[in-house]
Amino acid sequence: MINPFFKNNGPLNISDILQLINLDDLNIDNDQEINDIKDLLTSKKNDITFFHSKKYKNFAKNTKASFCLTTEILKDELPKSCLPLIVENVLVSTSKVTSKFYPSSINDNFDYTARDIAETKFKDKVKCGKNVLIGDNVTLGSNCLIGHNSIIEQNVSIGDNCSIGSNVIIRNTLIDNNVTVLDNCVIGKHGFGFFPVSKKNLRYPHIGIVIIGENSEIGCGCTIDRGSMSNTVIGKNSFLDNQIHIAHNVKIGDNSIIAGQVGIAGSSIIGNNVRIGGQAGISGHLTIGNNVEIAGGSGVIKNIKDNSKVMGYPAKNIRDFLKESK
Amino acid sequence: MINPFFKNNGPLNISDILQLINLDDLNIDNDQEINDIKDLLTSKKNDITFFHSKKYKNFAKNTKASFCLTTEILKDELPKSCLPLIVENVLVSTSKVTSKFYPSSINDNFDYTARDIAETKFKDKVKCGKNVLIGDNVTLGSNCLIGHNSIIEQNVSIGDNCSIGSNVIIRNTLIDNNVTVLDNCVIGKHGFGFFPVSKKNLRYPHIGIVIIGENSEIGCGCTIDRGSMSNTVIGKNSFLDNQIHIAHNVKIGDNSIIAGQVGIAGSSIIGNNVRIGGQAGISGHLTIGNNVEIAGGSGVIKNIKDNSKVMGYPAKNIRDFLKESK
Amino acid sequence: MINPFFKNNGPLNISDILQLINLDDLNIDNDQEINDIKDLLTSKKNDITFFHSKKYKNFAKNTKASFCLTTEILKDELPKSCLPLIVENVLVSTSKVTSKFYPSSINDNFDYTARDIAETKFKDKVKCGKNVLIGDNVTLGSNCLIGHNSIIEQNVSIGDNCSIGSNVIIRNTLIDNNVTVLDNCVIGKHGFGFFPVSKKNLRYPHIGIVIIGENSEIGCGCTIDRGSMSNTVIGKNSFLDNQIHIAHNVKIGDNSIIAGQVGIAGSSIIGNNVRIGGQAGISGHLTIGNNVEIAGGSGVIKNIKDNSKVMGYPAKNIRDFLKESK
Repeated sequence: MINPFFKNNGPLNISDILQLINLDDLNIDNDQEINDIKDLLTSKKNDITFFHSKKYKNFAKNTKASFCLTTEILKDELPKSCLPLIVENVLVSTSKVTSKFYPSSINDNFDYTARDIAETKFKDKVKCGKNVLIGDNVTLGSNCLIGHNSIIEQNVSIGDNCSIGSNVIIRNTLIDNNVTVLDNCVIGKHGFGFFPVSKKNLRYPHIGIVIIGENSEIGCGCTIDRGSMSNTVIGKNSFLDNQIHIAHNVKIGDNSIIAGQVGIAGSSIIGNNVRIGGQAGISGHLTIGNNVEIAGGSGVIKNIKDNSKVMGYPAKNIRDFLKESK
Repeated sequence: MINPFFKNNGPLNISDILQLINLDDLNIDNDQEINDIKDLLTSKKNDITFFHSKKYKNFAKNTKASFCLTTEILKDELPKSCLPLIVENVLVSTSKVTSKFYPSSINDNFDYTARDIAETKFKDKVKCGKNVLIGDNVTLGSNCLIGHNSIIEQNVSIGDNCSIGSNVIIRNTLIDNNVTVLDNCVIGKHGFGFFPVSKKNLRYPHIGIVIIGENSEIGCGCTIDRGSMSNTVIGKNSFLDNQIHIAHNVKIGDNSIIAGQVGIAGSSIIGNNVRIGGQAGISGHLTIGNNVEIAGGSGVIKNIKDNSKVMGYPAKNIRDFLKESK
Repeated sequence: MINPFFKNNGPLNISDILQLINLDDLNIDNDQEINDIKDLLTSKKNDITFFHSKKYKNFAKNTKASFCLTTEILKDELPKSCLPLIVENVLVSTSKVTSKFYPSSINDNFDYTARDIAETKFKDKVKCGKNVLIGDNVTLGSNCLIGHNSIIEQNVSIGDNCSIGSNVIIRNTLIDNNVTVLDNCVIGKHGFGFFPVSKKNLRYPHIGIVIIGENSEIGCGCTIDRGSMSNTVIGKNSFLDNQIHIAHNVKIGDNSIIAGQVGIAGSSIIGNNVRIGGQAGISGHLTIGNNVEIAGGSGVIKNIKDNSKVMGYPAKNIRDFLKESK
């Protein structure tokens, strides 16, 4: 859980947290301070964590957190040093607590701090177009270009020799050296993550960021959402064509090539040297190995092993698909 | 047929209308005035209507219109109070007559009336970014945000507590309270509706609008076209992810969740509590029931009943699809 | 190979070219001047050309070029007047040589020459919105409209009576009369063409342009990439809906109708009077005949004959598809 940008509102009193999740009748020292909310692996003493699925049993056993949002069934996996807090819906409660620690991670309104680059310290540093706006907490490397009408909103760090096109909007993003972002991209907005609630859905916090590795290129009109509890990552020297959508928490490896209009749903992990044809779609929470080739138009709904070539919907071995569809 | 925005050019003399559709040799009182063109159901005395398919027979029988564009075969379904005008192509003639009543509904050029918000009455009412433009006939509720470079073109009404992102373009649209529209959306342009004509297609008028219900959210880079003879509607608390295309006349119910890159073709009606996975497509003129789940990547080409789960192309029962595709 | 816009850096000494492709030990008159790089068919004496596939054997036999980048296997097809230059990878070498002749065709950074239209000769000629920018080497016909925040970058020619929307970016493009381009389009950027190289892919030059025929319409949020060694062409009276992606070198005929979110991969050729349903995809290097209908959601992976109706993925005869998928 890396969040260099979102300011932690903690420490918070455990009593305030318990009230938030309707556990205020629990018999706990009300003055105890909680520093942060983190996942099972990275949390420390005086942090709160969450444990909602047996999958994470091994992490749960060794967590260093002092408190854990969990269920009656899972609670016995936790070490004695970690007090289970039994809630009806672990993810909803996690969402509420995270929002309390990171209130600005919920809000994706336009960046009111953004002002004309001519009024900032970057005015002589960057070669830029007309009407370029820069928000708070931005760093820009040397020899960068920023096109007309582009908005570098809050919490962005861009390396050296980067070329940002026109009409681009970026926030909560780390961009390494020699990266190209073409026109009309929107990078770093919150993902499509929320708990469906009748009348008014409950959005969960997105405290992750977007990270784009060196030498990569993002085509025109792409959207790359930032992560919720982890980051969205594009590896080094990976090239994305136009109109691609990368959802929150997705990780794409190095040297990958992704053609136009591809969509990758939330939390999927794509290996290195992967090639994805146009309009292919990859469902959420999948793992796609290294050196995989996915034919254009395919719909991938399960994990794909290293070095495979797949095609179809649902995607299968490409030779099988072509044979069957004759 | 609700069109609060487009100005009706009527009443028009029936003789002018007859000339337009090459029926000027008809023996009709040339001075009779026609107020409006409406559909069979909503038209009144001294209106003109149109009837092009047997499907609408029951509406035809009871129409209150004084004239009806129709065919030799259908004309006998009309009541005596309604004079049939027999034309070769009902929809082309309807298009021509509608254009005469609503000339501004054809034109989707950029809004020349839009000017800097600082020059309008909204300058102190709305928290807004740089370079925000507001066209004629716009109303904005209290506590709204409008991001950088966004253009609220003519004929837009936005409720309270709405958050409009940056680089957004909206026209001919009613937005209810607590709605979020993220960056780079285009809402309210005419749909992809025209009669193919060699050398120069004939665009038909789009006198409908877009209506977005309260608490809804529209993701980055979406396009939502306004209706032609009815409205395009997004219900309450419905959430759309990034890069979605909603065509003209589509109606989406309440509490629906639509993932990235979905496309819904013209005039389809989607129920409440519907969930649609990424990149799914829905053909035009379909009815999708309530509580339907459509898997990502599916192609829906026929109506779907309430409470169904479908997948595949063409979409079918999800269990059948998964069994067959093993 | 039409490139009215990119400036030819030639003539170049053959010695400089040989060095570029690691053939500097060849025994050739070092002072010989080479005027241009062109394809087998259009090149003339003192040009260099390239020949990388048996498919082009007949063109190779008759080429007028003085030099040809090719392979050991193919070289004997060339006439005596054309000296073969044997290289490991013909396309990579072609790319390097083309970059030398046309250095500006590699670079798609934002157009630094673009300035406020009020500072140009067009200020009284064009009806335009706020914040419109015009680059070098632009011509605009009479009676044109250009919307707010649009950028007509370098090397664009627009005919009479064209309507360009807002937030549009165009470069390296010829637009004929009576064309409509709706909001948020990006037209004329380089295509997704490069040679994959670990650490840093090698982009190949795009010296082609985009050509849009009269009476055509391009919907909101489309991307149309310019050609690499040929042009990207949209015919006359062809209508594209929203969010369509047209890759480099694609040619689309006249009177075609393409629905929302369609993607056409590089170098495919689409006939006249073609209709393509929403979200359909067409693979690269295919030929789609005249009067073809492709159903929405289809994935076309082979050539389609005139007058066919296809559906499915891979797309096949529509009746067969519907029968099989019952």
